[in-house]
Amino acid sequence: MRFEKHRPIRAGMIGGGEGAFIGAVHRRAMAIDGQYQLVCGAFSRNSDNNLLTAAQLGIDEHRAYSSWQQLLAAEALLPEQERMQVLIIVTPNQLHVPISRAALQAGFHVFCEKPAGVSLAETQELAQELAQSHLLYGLAHTYLGYPMVWQAKQLIADGAIGTLRKIIVEYPQGWLTQNLEASANKQASWRTDPAQAGASGCMADIGTHAFGLAEFISQQQITHLCADLTSHITGRQLDDDGAALFRTEQGVSGVLLASQVCAGEENALSIRLYGDKGGMEWQQMEPNSLIVRGINSPLQILRAGKGQPGLCQAALDRCRLPGGHPEGYLEAMANLYHDFAKAIRAGAHGTAAGVPGIDAGLRGMAFIDTITQSSNSEQKWHTLPKQLHTAFTGVI
Amino acid sequence: MRFEKHRPIRAGMIGGGEGAFIGAVHRRAMAIDGQYQLVCGAFSRNSDNNLLTAAQLGIDEHRAYSSWQQLLAAEALLPEQERMQVLIIVTPNQLHVPISRAALQAGFHVFCEKPAGVSLAETQELAQELAQSHLLYGLAHTYLGYPMVWQAKQLIADGAIGTLRKIIVEYPQGWLTQNLEASANKQASWRTDPAQAGASGCMADIGTHAFGLAEFISQQQITHLCADLTSHITGRQLDDDGAALFRTEQGVSGVLLASQVCAGEENALSIRLYGDKGGMEWQQMEPNSLIVRGINSPLQILRAGKGQPGLCQAALDRCRLPGGHPEGYLEAMANLYHDFAKAIRAGAHGTAAGVPGIDAGLRGMAFIDTITQSSNSEQKWHTLPKQLHTAFTGVI
Amino acid sequence: MRFEKHRPIRAGMIGGGEGAFIGAVHRRAMAIDGQYQLVCGAFSRNSDNNLLTAAQLGIDEHRAYSSWQQLLAAEALLPEQERMQVLIIVTPNQLHVPISRAALQAGFHVFCEKPAGVSLAETQELAQELAQSHLLYGLAHTYLGYPMVWQAKQLIADGAIGTLRKIIVEYPQGWLTQNLEASANKQASWRTDPAQAGASGCMADIGTHAFGLAEFISQQQITHLCADLTSHITGRQLDDDGAALFRTEQGVSGVLLASQVCAGEENALSIRLYGDKGGMEWQQMEPNSLIVRGINSPLQILRAGKGQPGLCQAALDRCRLPGGHPEGYLEAMANLYHDFAKAIRAGAHGTAAGVPGIDAGLRGMAFIDTITQSSNSEQKWHTLPKQLHTAFTGVI
Amino acid sequence: MRFEKHRPIRAGMIGGGEGAFIGAVHRRAMAIDGQYQLVCGAFSRNSDNNLLTAAQLGIDEHRAYSSWQQLLAAEALLPEQERMQVLIIVTPNQLHVPISRAALQAGFHVFCEKPAGVSLAETQELAQELAQSHLLYGLAHTYLGYPMVWQAKQLIADGAIGTLRKIIVEYPQGWLTQNLEASANKQASWRTDPAQAGASGCMADIGTHAFGLAEFISQQQITHLCADLTSHITGRQLDDDGAALFRTEQGVSGVLLASQVCAGEENALSIRLYGDKGGMEWQQMEPNSLIVRGINSPLQILRAGKGQPGLCQAALDRCRLPGGHPEGYLEAMANLYHDFAKAIRAGAHGTAAGVPGIDAGLRGMAFIDTITQSSNSEQKWHTLPKQLHTAFTGVI
Repeated sequence: MRFEKHRPIRAGMIGGGEGAFIGAVHRRAMAIDGQYQLVCGAFSRNSDNNLLTAAQLGIDEHRAYSSWQQLLAAEALLPEQERMQVLIIVTPNQLHVPISRAALQAGFHVFCEKPAGVSLAETQELAQELAQSHLLYGLAHTYLGYPMVWQAKQLIADGAIGTLRKIIVEYPQGWLTQNLEASANKQASWRTDPAQAGASGCMADIGTHAFGLAEFISQQQITHLCADLTSHITGRQLDDDGAALFRTEQGVSGVLLASQVCAGEENALSIRLYGDKGGMEWQQMEPNSLIVRGINSPLQILRAGKGQPGLCQAALDRCRLPGGHPEGYLEAMANLYHDFAKAIRAGAHGTAAGVPGIDAGLRGMAFIDTITQSSNSEQKWHTLPKQLHTAFTGVI
Repeated sequence: MRFEKHRPIRAGMIGGGEGAFIGAVHRRAMAIDGQYQLVCGAFSRNSDNNLLTAAQLGIDEHRAYSSWQQLLAAEALLPEQERMQVLIIVTPNQLHVPISRAALQAGFHVFCEKPAGVSLAETQELAQELAQSHLLYGLAHTYLGYPMVWQAKQLIADGAIGTLRKIIVEYPQGWLTQNLEASANKQASWRTDPAQAGASGCMADIGTHAFGLAEFISQQQITHLCADLTSHITGRQLDDDGAALFRTEQGVSGVLLASQVCAGEENALSIRLYGDKGGMEWQQMEPNSLIVRGINSPLQILRAGKGQPGLCQAALDRCRLPGGHPEGYLEAMANLYHDFAKAIRAGAHGTAAGVPGIDAGLRGMAFIDTITQSSNSEQKWHTLPKQLHTAFTGVI
Repeated sequence: MRFEKHRPIRAGMIGGGEGAFIGAVHRRAMAIDGQYQLVCGAFSRNSDNNLLTAAQLGIDEHRAYSSWQQLLAAEALLPEQERMQVLIIVTPNQLHVPISRAALQAGFHVFCEKPAGVSLAETQELAQELAQSHLLYGLAHTYLGYPMVWQAKQLIADGAIGTLRKIIVEYPQGWLTQNLEASANKQASWRTDPAQAGASGCMADIGTHAFGLAEFISQQQITHLCADLTSHITGRQLDDDGAALFRTEQGVSGVLLASQVCAGEENALSIRLYGDKGGMEWQQMEPNSLIVRGINSPLQILRAGKGQPGLCQAALDRCRLPGGHPEGYLEAMANLYHDFAKAIRAGAHGTAAGVPGIDAGLRGMAFIDTITQSSNSEQKWHTLPKQLHTAFTGVI
Repeated sequence: MRFEKHRPIRAGMIGGGEGAFIGAVHRRAMAIDGQYQLVCGAFSRNSDNNLLTAAQLGIDEHRAYSSWQQLLAAEALLPEQERMQVLIIVTPNQLHVPISRAALQAGFHVFCEKPAGVSLAETQELAQELAQSHLLYGLAHTYLGYPMVWQAKQLIADGAIGTLRKIIVEYPQGWLTQNLEASANKQASWRTDPAQAGASGCMADIGTHAFGLAEFISQQQITHLCADLTSHITGRQLDDDGAALFRTEQGVSGVLLASQVCAGEENALSIRLYGDKGGMEWQQMEPNSLIVRGINSPLQILRAGKGQPGLCQAALDRCRLPGGHPEGYLEAMANLYHDFAKAIRAGAHGTAAGVPGIDAGLRGMAFIDTITQSSNSEQKWHTLPKQLHTAFTGVI
């Protein structure tokens, strides 16, 4: 018998040179399932950094481009069997939309770090660009790659905890407790600079994760926000901390909390959902457990892992190892890359099944717009704009 | 050598008959340190219940009074060595102030379940009454009796986590998830009845605990609130769920959350505080641990218990057993009773050192007033009234 | 309607003066449910300590006896309505049997700290004494008072985890890590002195708890032991650490581990049991949770508390508070005292339902004898002597 | 500036076809740091499976060999720049030594699943073979790749908990609770078959992990064992459960426990170590935390992650992500592969720094030999053979 030989998808990357954080994370996540080969990149505006990174990654020097514009131009000219198929964008926020749009125009799929952009307006333009293409757009809402997040979504859909009433979603970090941007910390510098990060710091960086997680698991749209954002460091221009009361279209009330000055906290994204029949809790730092509470039954802990009891297919599909062999953040992102590869191979366009796409991006931008407006206002409630595209028309 | 024989303090109780919840809790908590003897009571308006409860408690039939008015009148006539010294009030909220005032007028110390009353106005009258007396008033904010709550307060005072920036305090319960008041559940009925509970359900019942805990540990006054309260059951007149953004006088921002419809949650009061040097976390359901986070040091868990390393005197004083022998809710309340007895013996008046008093009561009522106003308003921030008495002039 | 007035049971105590540990614990545990009145004692051989303790406890000076012999003699002469009904023994181990026997001979019920004695032989004599009396004997295996221990026992009996195969029971403490007996630590001194503690230190003090817990929950008798005991401090005469492989009559294999030199451990008694259908885990330091594992179902955590789902009657009967209001060590011991009082009132003799009795004492002594023999032997397995009385003929 | 382009190490694999477990795990672990390219394999004796697996992995059909012998022969003939450099062995145990020896003889580095072989004798022959080569041998004791295991080792070496006294190491699993080998479960079948697994089931499969972890962290050699192994399933020929008391050369006493019939347990490898100044605890299922207990200081939890406070260099080197982004089992194995690649590139031979090697293999086999002998004996203690090679001469 003959079997067709597997060929990895050819990827390029913008950003992710030495000293960057998330680029190397993407490369490791891409590698886990053997679905991609990184063939080109523009890793840094610093030429040495760019060439060094390329060499370390085994990329030919002539495909280490000096700018993203050059990369797109040059790769488009290569023979089809050789040229990049998907562009991975791991730059500061303000470049996300310009590069994404140019890549789509040049005929490449895009997989982009979140947030989708720095304003709702530019992201809507990107959405139109995508709609007119036959290409895929994926957004690295990594936490939506965790198996137990899918399990939670399924249990909500199944009515396991009844009609939803309340959501508490929070994302405390502590790494900006001190004025890191005053020293030369690269991560801190761009994230606290409005020119690179957009109108929001903490809410754009991690509040969007909390927001997206809440909407994804609940499959409800948040319609009203009342927020109080702060910056706790003198001279810091963007919010490093905040919270919001919220309401969903279906009447769920909730609290969203995100902070980067919760000193000593690592990366404690968590969500709790309560319905009229039970409750549910998931914590990113113990991602393989999902706590399910009932009103007339003992607390249960569902556990990730191949063959584990009580898991839905979507959760099982996102596990590589038997229960008790911890999988983590890289594996969660690998799940997004896995599904994105599958969609590329299947010739899909728009949004890849299983991968947050442009709708998630639009929702995130609407969230950032509204929460910053709310924080600056004396009016209690602010309304999130609705959209024709929604996060809920697709698979995700 | 001769030693003076210990004589227990003679106590009376209003409320706490068969079928009540908190009365029996108080009786057990009083008993733990052997400082009290219950000598009289008006346990129930139902005569059989009243007499039965008295008999079960070993109280003479003639001191089982048919009403609180009768109790006060009759006890006042007894010889000094025999008559009640302190009155314990465990009735529904609307009777707290009337009985407290009458007891003070009749010359008895008062130890009252929280909240202090059903409005700030009546509680201020009570405060004046107390100020004119030479008697003590204690409020059963039981959670302030836990050793690790005192440890947390001390660490804040010592600057262990630096200048405070953020407080997250929450109190999720699930027991009102269903419409219990529709059945004959006594606890649910009065707590959801404005005539007995006052203007708020959940916030009066447990939100006050969260509020008091935050102010006690931080030793800061909350000045601004922005709240969203809800009732999730059709026909329920009082809030069963809610949250508020808040600010303190010193610029701390925070979130307060209380709910009785978080299905499956037991009694999950918790608090997290963050400063510019570290963070801290305490959970009532694991009360013997206090998590302390630093920005440049590993996480620590301080543990309650006699002789445990790192504890301040106030925490050690509130432990009866060596580490690893769990103490809980009854012991926390017993700590309040212990300190109240000490103050009675010392002839103190006003507030007993170590016991929440009238100032805590006033703060709690101001909180209830303000949070209900805020929830009904379209204006973002509402201001808590200040007061001459504060929770911070006394020891607690 | 008239109700009979409750009268507390009159108790006396040997040991438990100032500076002692467990006496005060017993007094608090006795007090919680209001079933006892301490009327007399011989608290210390030091006269001042004895009188001081009595005075602090509100006991008349003439009932603060200078020796246990005097107490028994004098109390026996008092009128029936006045004299002590039950004697509580909280002395070092070597006095347990002599006092217990004398108390029974003088017509008093006995409630004794564990272990029952310092040898199996003397404990068997005590058993005979008890058999000939019409009195009750209770042993303070406090951990058997926890609700979730009863829940575990019930689940095993119900076959919830199938046929038992394996038990892992352990009791690590750290308080003897240093040579405390070299300083004047009273607790350390007698526990490491063969003349006061008997043939074993750690195994007599806490190994018996682990052994008793395993036999109680499993309702199986351990028949074979292979042990390795050690003393890690130069000059310490008794074991401070050890472990044993074991087998039960029904073929369960297991490990028992007890140590007082596990530096930093508090009081970490725990047990895990595995059958052919599931497993179970209970930890004394989180006593209100019972973890239940199935092979084809998600992990469950049963939680103590009034009205909690999934609990058997025996567990519910041992809870005083709703779920989430932690109960602990004092409440566990209070459960033993509660049931002992009930049995006294009911006129029972021998063993009180719900309270470990002489059979538990005999098993504990057989365990101490066998484990010390095994540790001194080059032979692999040692057999525990069977007995006519067993821990399993009674309720417990 | 010019940078040398990174070239991945060319690897081959024996075993790991469709339906196997550990082969795919190795492939993912290899991929994470981009250090390897899988170029050939003999994945299955089933030809279709072999070819399918190769195709799925993007391996040329002509390098999908029908047997390991053929693979070695054919690869040896390829040009140096093309041929395999390292052979990865993921077969059942009985083939480990034969293939390892042949691979070394053919000039290939070996990275082998544990245990090293099925007897100490054959493993000693392998050790001699290796000694005479200029090649590297690595053993996939995956758990030794976790950062916090290295942190624990360093803390012991630094005397952070003083002179060691006690070790408790355990590895409970539940997956063989039922008679899986009676159905066609591939994993269960070979592991319970003496012809494929060797003299031991559970102890060879997972007991060796527990043993190796204890020796690695403590850097002490276990010299005495007293064991009780069992098979709980009728007809199962090899142990599925067992425990041993042990002693080390330096007088540490300990307990080792391994079981595959602890129903409901996942993969709960854990270790606790106690010295005269403190204790330490690590659990594989929460691998990013290391609990450190002191006798006069609060409990600390050290946490894995880039830049985390309190970590040694060896631990930091094994983290890819900041704290709070969970890394797990794949990343632990990836750490072994990472260090093995480094040693290959450095031209090292014998044992790769950071990777368990032949000495760990010999110790593991000595453990299996001794524990099975002990279990069949009535003599209490059995001695582990010493060896010239020890696990402690090398880096690991």
